[in-house]
Amino acid sequence: MQEKRAEMDKRLSSEAISVLEVPVHDQHSTYPEPFASMIKGRTKRRLGDFFNLSNFGVNLTHLEPGAISALRHSHSKQDEFIYILEGNPTLHTDDGKSKLTPGMCAGFMAGSGNGHQLINESDKEVIYLEIGDRTPGDTGSYPDDDLQAAMTESGWQFSHKDGTPY
Amino acid sequence: MQEKRAEMDKRLSSEAISVLEVPVHDQHSTYPEPFASMIKGRTKRRLGDFFNLSNFGVNLTHLEPGAISALRHSHSKQDEFIYILEGNPTLHTDDGKSKLTPGMCAGFMAGSGNGHQLINESDKEVIYLEIGDRTPGDTGSYPDDDLQAAMTESGWQFSHKDGTPY
Repeated sequence: MQEKRAEMDKRLSSEAISVLEVPVHDQHSTYPEPFASMIKGRTKRRLGDFFNLSNFGVNLTHLEPGAISALRHSHSKQDEFIYILEGNPTLHTDDGKSKLTPGMCAGFMAGSGNGHQLINESDKEVIYLEIGDRTPGDTGSYPDDDLQAAMTESGWQFSHKDGTPY
Repeated sequence: MQEKRAEMDKRLSSEAISVLEVPVHDQHSTYPEPFASMIKGRTKRRLGDFFNLSNFGVNLTHLEPGAISALRHSHSKQDEFIYILEGNPTLHTDDGKSKLTPGMCAGFMAGSGNGHQLINESDKEVIYLEIGDRTPGDTGSYPDDDLQAAMTESGWQFSHKDGTPY
């Protein structure tokens, strides 16, 4: 029902809206367990989809205290970009951890192999914009976990690092 | 020299930065005259390029009072998205004009034909993020001006609406 409402709310015109008018996407993480449960406290509004954009996605993402953006990962073909709007997330990459503030940004070039994630280690909510394209044939690498991902026509397909399916 | 500096500043790592650390891009509008001169008071920081992203661009754009984002235009193949950070730009589309505030966003779906532009009709600076992908073969349509554009390997090629080159 909420899905239906979101669909109806989609703008076919180019009328601007406040980002908070976009419904929270209620789909849970597509990770297999035990990883899916680690994504509690993360909510996304799919701003780009709301305007029927298909070449890239723009999400407004909230992280409650303790929540993470994703498992630490890198993409083979898709670029990613984040812009911090509110709060102080910790960016964790191969280069270590650093505390971010509003007005900071980072880009994660496809194929760099540098795994990244945001962690809300603060006691206040974190809000940021995340942007990613939709280049087909993408794969995801997870340096800290026994997980790998391949984008298929039906979505992300996850397996153990030795190829065994979950 | 400034170009050189910007090049050197490019992050090959995924280290986050404050957006204001990204140098202002000093290239002028690629529009032919008399249109190029109409883009005074607009400055861009190419945040995505700074991180060597190639699938999409993310710019931090400032509009001084009186400045416009671009001639009113639409893209045939590339999606566009804007998020207002500061100030009160006026969004002008086929649907009319509306005043935006920080935290508002809009998406401009490829092929919609709905021409859009931001105009700073206020007396304060406007700052926003603009995102666009790089799908090849894009064309630009300009409903209010005798101009059309085609993306070629060497950049945008502009002509009059009857095809005569500028």
